[in-house]
Amino acid sequence: MTLLTSWVESANSADTDFPLNNLPYGVFSTDSLEPRCGVAIGDMVLDMAAVEAEDLILLHFDPVFDVPYWNDVMDLGPDTWAKLRAQLTALLASGSPDQAKAAPHLVPMSEIRLHMPFVVSEYTDFYAGRHHATNVGTMFRGVENALPPNWLHIPIGYNGRASTVVVSGTDIYRPNGQLKAPDADTPTFGPCKRLDIELEMGAIVGTSTEMGNMISVAEADEMIFGYVLLNDWSARDIQAWEYQPLGPFQAKAFATSISPWIVTAAALDPFRTPTPDREKELLPYLQEPKPMLYDIDLSILIQPDGGEQEVLARTNYNTMYYSAPQQLAHHASSGCAMNAGDLLGSGTISGPEKNERGSLLELSWGGKEPITLSDGSTRSFIEDGDTMILTGHAQGNGYRIGFGACSGTILPAKPQP
Amino acid sequence: MTLLTSWVESANSADTDFPLNNLPYGVFSTDSLEPRCGVAIGDMVLDMAAVEAEDLILLHFDPVFDVPYWNDVMDLGPDTWAKLRAQLTALLASGSPDQAKAAPHLVPMSEIRLHMPFVVSEYTDFYAGRHHATNVGTMFRGVENALPPNWLHIPIGYNGRASTVVVSGTDIYRPNGQLKAPDADTPTFGPCKRLDIELEMGAIVGTSTEMGNMISVAEADEMIFGYVLLNDWSARDIQAWEYQPLGPFQAKAFATSISPWIVTAAALDPFRTPTPDREKELLPYLQEPKPMLYDIDLSILIQPDGGEQEVLARTNYNTMYYSAPQQLAHHASSGCAMNAGDLLGSGTISGPEKNERGSLLELSWGGKEPITLSDGSTRSFIEDGDTMILTGHAQGNGYRIGFGACSGTILPAKPQP
Repeated sequence: MTLLTSWVESANSADTDFPLNNLPYGVFSTDSLEPRCGVAIGDMVLDMAAVEAEDLILLHFDPVFDVPYWNDVMDLGPDTWAKLRAQLTALLASGSPDQAKAAPHLVPMSEIRLHMPFVVSEYTDFYAGRHHATNVGTMFRGVENALPPNWLHIPIGYNGRASTVVVSGTDIYRPNGQLKAPDADTPTFGPCKRLDIELEMGAIVGTSTEMGNMISVAEADEMIFGYVLLNDWSARDIQAWEYQPLGPFQAKAFATSISPWIVTAAALDPFRTPTPDREKELLPYLQEPKPMLYDIDLSILIQPDGGEQEVLARTNYNTMYYSAPQQLAHHASSGCAMNAGDLLGSGTISGPEKNERGSLLELSWGGKEPITLSDGSTRSFIEDGDTMILTGHAQGNGYRIGFGACSGTILPAKPQP
Repeated sequence: MTLLTSWVESANSADTDFPLNNLPYGVFSTDSLEPRCGVAIGDMVLDMAAVEAEDLILLHFDPVFDVPYWNDVMDLGPDTWAKLRAQLTALLASGSPDQAKAAPHLVPMSEIRLHMPFVVSEYTDFYAGRHHATNVGTMFRGVENALPPNWLHIPIGYNGRASTVVVSGTDIYRPNGQLKAPDADTPTFGPCKRLDIELEMGAIVGTSTEMGNMISVAEADEMIFGYVLLNDWSARDIQAWEYQPLGPFQAKAFATSISPWIVTAAALDPFRTPTPDREKELLPYLQEPKPMLYDIDLSILIQPDGGEQEVLARTNYNTMYYSAPQQLAHHASSGCAMNAGDLLGSGTISGPEKNERGSLLELSWGGKEPITLSDGSTRSFIEDGDTMILTGHAQGNGYRIGFGACSGTILPAKPQP
């Protein structure tokens, strides 16, 4: 596939994140507009509430875009998702007969504030990156026992906290928590000293299943509305002390950041790629009938307080061992009801090379190999004032499907009340 | 405190769960009434939408009871919760001037269906029963390592799945999942063979906290709207294979049942009791300024298909090591935002004696000591057709504060699609 040209000139650049081929969904506001649904096109945002009010986009007899979330569109189902994409593509394509009517409803990105694009029903985080699991396992259990015995059979996941999923740009307070040094008898309570990121993709479930029902991987694939970049902020010291025997809790509960634009599964379709060869055959309910990962280049950047952005690592979503549809099929396998608005974190995405690792824990090898930044300072973990930025895009022929940034700045921990 | 008498005669019996002292909140419907808020009194339910429409109860300028959940009442805050309880107590007390107006809005319990009393925002399950943790730890890790090292310092918890919290009376399909026998090389997929209950209390959070903010245990206590009985259905074989390293997932995701009536913290106030003496001093943020557990007698009953109910175990909520306010304060300690409608499971409540254990896993000691029922059959775990029932009440002087039953019948696993 090649670039589809738009009458929005900035959308025709080879390096915009938002060509006509993309059309991702966000929620924006301006000084004069209340938060509402918008679609990114080049360096503009199409005000969906306005074009719906003028019947330039027609989905449903009730308006669905004059609200600060895309959940109402999800509820209309996959056929309507396809209809919406077709209408938007026609409306914004070069030569559209409705250009004159739509143009007044484009808002420059420089004038908008972005909000959470959807209401998160529940948030689940997985652990599907083989290089990440191997790296972390090696650090904690030794190279011989790096991968847990179930890892090649189950897309391991745990339930996270939906209440603290926030949009890119939201500042994050360094969490407090119980910390215990290996040689201490008892824990203390105070600010996390080993604050980290995890570079992940987030898959957004767009339709629902009934309690008691399983779904196939193929059905799961059709249920996914779109993808975002996801930063699973992690307090490694809180995690180390709390996580046995029931898993991460407060170490992950304080914040999860996502990029502001839902990139649809339809936009990513040309970039499907298979999961890697299986070391052990998967049980039938987890087998994929077609490629369900995506070829998405990913980067981690850091910007120290007052400094410049620099790249810490580059990797690709195609390194994952399990796809989001496999994770979703597993999630429903016990009869767990899944709902529109559920968010599934992929797990940390690390490539095989050292500069492809998706967390500071891995990049600094547990703090043993601090990273030197261009200003001469070093980082084992995140310092107050650091801004951590994730970026990602799928590279097409003369265009790219970008996600926009997923960034967050760390503020000092609040004192205990 | 003694029995408060009501003009609803059935509420004055010493063995009703619902005297005037209780006034628990549920959601009910009948053949002619849509689901709406109701209050249990004796063997009747007060139709709150109707008494609000006639201004017999006045909380807010907008109606809050003509909806199938109590979340709108939670949102009005603790002062209004107290006002509501005072108005209800006056309305239903012997000698109430409004008896004639209210009486037509009492519906016999025999004519109602009960629904989920609130919309669950998120569900978190804790592990705060010392006898339970010791029993399970002894089975899995040996008596020397029974309690994890963090257990006496942290109210250990994990995020559960809100989408499958269901009201008492809802049938539960036996879950499918990955199972691996200890001597098998690879897992299989099929119906759980070690299906279990966990007897717990559920605390319902009634107000919210902001992301980034901690709360004290005293503040947490004031945030709790009420309590229910909670059955944390558990697939022990799925759990054993999946739970390392990130905790329980599909083993618990298929269902959690709660009793239909929210018993308010106010109704339970006379039954406050302290947590046990600390073996290790708690960090200041977890210390309780006053008693925050409750003296609540609890029972587990089983009813085989076509058989009679019989008691399997009796215990008391006062045996727990951590209270719900301690759990809630810990939950928010990292800055995790808490919301009205969040449900916190206490963890399995087991007493020190064998017949006080809160799960079949403990009662049958992992299946090694099957339980013989009165019909001569035995149980290590739950069989298809079994109905599992939890009951509970706080015993006052001539009255009791009851919860109603929390029951669920196990249906055979659905075949894989």
